[in-house]
Amino acid sequence: MELYSGYINKLIEELSGLPGIGEKSASRLAFHLIHMPKAKVERLARTIVEAKEHVQYCRECYTLTDQEICLICANEKRDHTTIMVLENTRDLAAYEKTGKYEGVYHVLHGAISPMIGIGPSDLKLKELLQRLQGDIKEVIIATNSSLEGETTAMYISKLIKPTGVKVTRIASGVPVGGDLEYIDEVTLLRALEGRIEL
Amino acid sequence: MELYSGYINKLIEELSGLPGIGEKSASRLAFHLIHMPKAKVERLARTIVEAKEHVQYCRECYTLTDQEICLICANEKRDHTTIMVLENTRDLAAYEKTGKYEGVYHVLHGAISPMIGIGPSDLKLKELLQRLQGDIKEVIIATNSSLEGETTAMYISKLIKPTGVKVTRIASGVPVGGDLEYIDEVTLLRALEGRIEL
Repeated sequence: MELYSGYINKLIEELSGLPGIGEKSASRLAFHLIHMPKAKVERLARTIVEAKEHVQYCRECYTLTDQEICLICANEKRDHTTIMVLENTRDLAAYEKTGKYEGVYHVLHGAISPMIGIGPSDLKLKELLQRLQGDIKEVIIATNSSLEGETTAMYISKLIKPTGVKVTRIASGVPVGGDLEYIDEVTLLRALEGRIEL
Repeated sequence: MELYSGYINKLIEELSGLPGIGEKSASRLAFHLIHMPKAKVERLARTIVEAKEHVQYCRECYTLTDQEICLICANEKRDHTTIMVLENTRDLAAYEKTGKYEGVYHVLHGAISPMIGIGPSDLKLKELLQRLQGDIKEVIIATNSSLEGETTAMYISKLIKPTGVKVTRIASGVPVGGDLEYIDEVTLLRALEGRIEL
């Protein structure tokens, strides 16, 4: 016998397909939704569908936006000769939160990962090369400091070098406030290699 | 400047209002939804609204179901003279998974908690008393082993005793497979108090 009625089971099944939501959280969520006022539930459902419908890639930098050109690319005060390359829109938001980066971005939507079948052609790399035909002084590669992120960084740097555009990579090292005792060896070695003179 | 475009921000805001979903998970979820195929997103949204629309209380035991009478109450093979009282439908599912309980249930939809303003009248207690007018032999109180659950259990037992129906409470103690070292003192004392002769 099924534990819950059909509509509840179906909802739990749909929710547990989302990232970071296991079966237990899915059932907690499902019952929360069922107990919510009908108007709020409908608003949530509508918001999900609307976001899916209206959000698209920026024609310039491929971040997710509901405009044809995102607000950053459309901003003439930004330095359009410096492009920071990122894996996704959330990473872009993280840098944007610092409020200190003046350049523009390029979102790859992934990183090279043969393990899960993501190759260079699955990323917005052709689009990046096309942008380099304009007046670009520097490409800062800010993919994650993971195996996939590093592989992608190496690949992009090889791809761009022949064009003569300066390519840089954000620094790896001990995070600010990090306690050496709890930091993995690879990071510690990276921090040592990347040491700067004071 | 806002970090994301309007539709994305709105979606993140809606999602982070759900239980157990913080701002970071909400943004991860939001981008996952935006990257999902449109048909799947629409199906998810529809499932949420449909569950809300079709799921109602069972007229007998007040569990959530999409029938007028839930499958358990409608099952003539179950022992309808024994009622297990639970806080919510998920707890019912937990007992139902054991496959060993033959009686029926009664779902309170909460526990007495003056701290958050939930009193006896907010629970399905009147409905429980009404059921006791039928042929009931035993009421097993299986509210949680929390302060609220215990308070509710005490309250219900006082309420039912005058009717002459037998009232029992599920045992508290060390969970099966539990390592004494990691178990809190209150549980250890409960386990001692509730010891049984071998």
